[in-house]
Amino acid sequence: MPKYYWEDFVAGQVAEYGAYEVSADEIKAFATEFDPQPMHLDEEAARASIVGGLCASGWHSCAIMMRIIADGFVLDSASMGATGCPEVKWIAPVRPGDRLRVRVKVLDRRVSKSRPEMGFVNARFDMLNAADLPVMTVTTHMMLERRPTDGAGEPTGAT
Amino acid sequence: MPKYYWEDFVAGQVAEYGAYEVSADEIKAFATEFDPQPMHLDEEAARASIVGGLCASGWHSCAIMMRIIADGFVLDSASMGATGCPEVKWIAPVRPGDRLRVRVKVLDRRVSKSRPEMGFVNARFDMLNAADLPVMTVTTHMMLERRPTDGAGEPTGAT
Repeated sequence: MPKYYWEDFVAGQVAEYGAYEVSADEIKAFATEFDPQPMHLDEEAARASIVGGLCASGWHSCAIMMRIIADGFVLDSASMGATGCPEVKWIAPVRPGDRLRVRVKVLDRRVSKSRPEMGFVNARFDMLNAADLPVMTVTTHMMLERRPTDGAGEPTGAT
Repeated sequence: MPKYYWEDFVAGQVAEYGAYEVSADEIKAFATEFDPQPMHLDEEAARASIVGGLCASGWHSCAIMMRIIADGFVLDSASMGATGCPEVKWIAPVRPGDRLRVRVKVLDRRVSKSRPEMGFVNARFDMLNAADLPVMTVTTHMMLERRPTDGAGEPTGAT
């Protein structure tokens, strides 16, 4: 049984998850498969580029963020996925050896009109490195099941 | 030498790249590493979920899109990366066996004020399946080098 339902995400809540340490090998493996630009694959070429050294693909950063929040709360929740992200901002390069955390802030939520057994939660994810500097910000529309009813037709914990 | 510079991206241009065929094994491998939710890992659990069957993580879809555009034009361009995406929309599930293409539309562009040797290109990427239905839309701010000058101080091909 999931621990967290839609009702458990309240506007203003902040939580932090991680850390996840990124290796050079992992950066290159992801790049080889999905984003083989020199700045993600080759130290020397990366040093000569605008980013000044090997860094993770922005999509790798997104995947790492997903892993951190999956382990942090998504796998314990009645998650139904997400419809998308109204913002993905790559703020600073993610480097080999970076220890990343994700700070989650719940922005707002609403019950689905067409499917009242589920709800949407808008959240902001700030991925931070060990120096507490943001490397990426993502906002997203998560979908979650509402807490099952107690049999009297009212969802337990509904407000 | 790159084939495409900032000057080669003109508002209104449309091009299409792919196809890329997605396998169930690949969907599960990505999910195992980055997004181990049951709908991306287990056929039976996926059938019982809102998506009705195994589907790729949304971040896997983004990574596949990156691979398609990397092979399509990014690796032939003077790409300097991207600052982010003002929109990522997951429209329909990406399924095992889907053959995906990406339709790229150039929205607009501008020269960087602080770094006049580079420019920004805003583009929209629609990822389509074999039935020509959009499964994902991403808009992004790409950074590209401007075409090297001919020595007379004017970038070749500048308008």
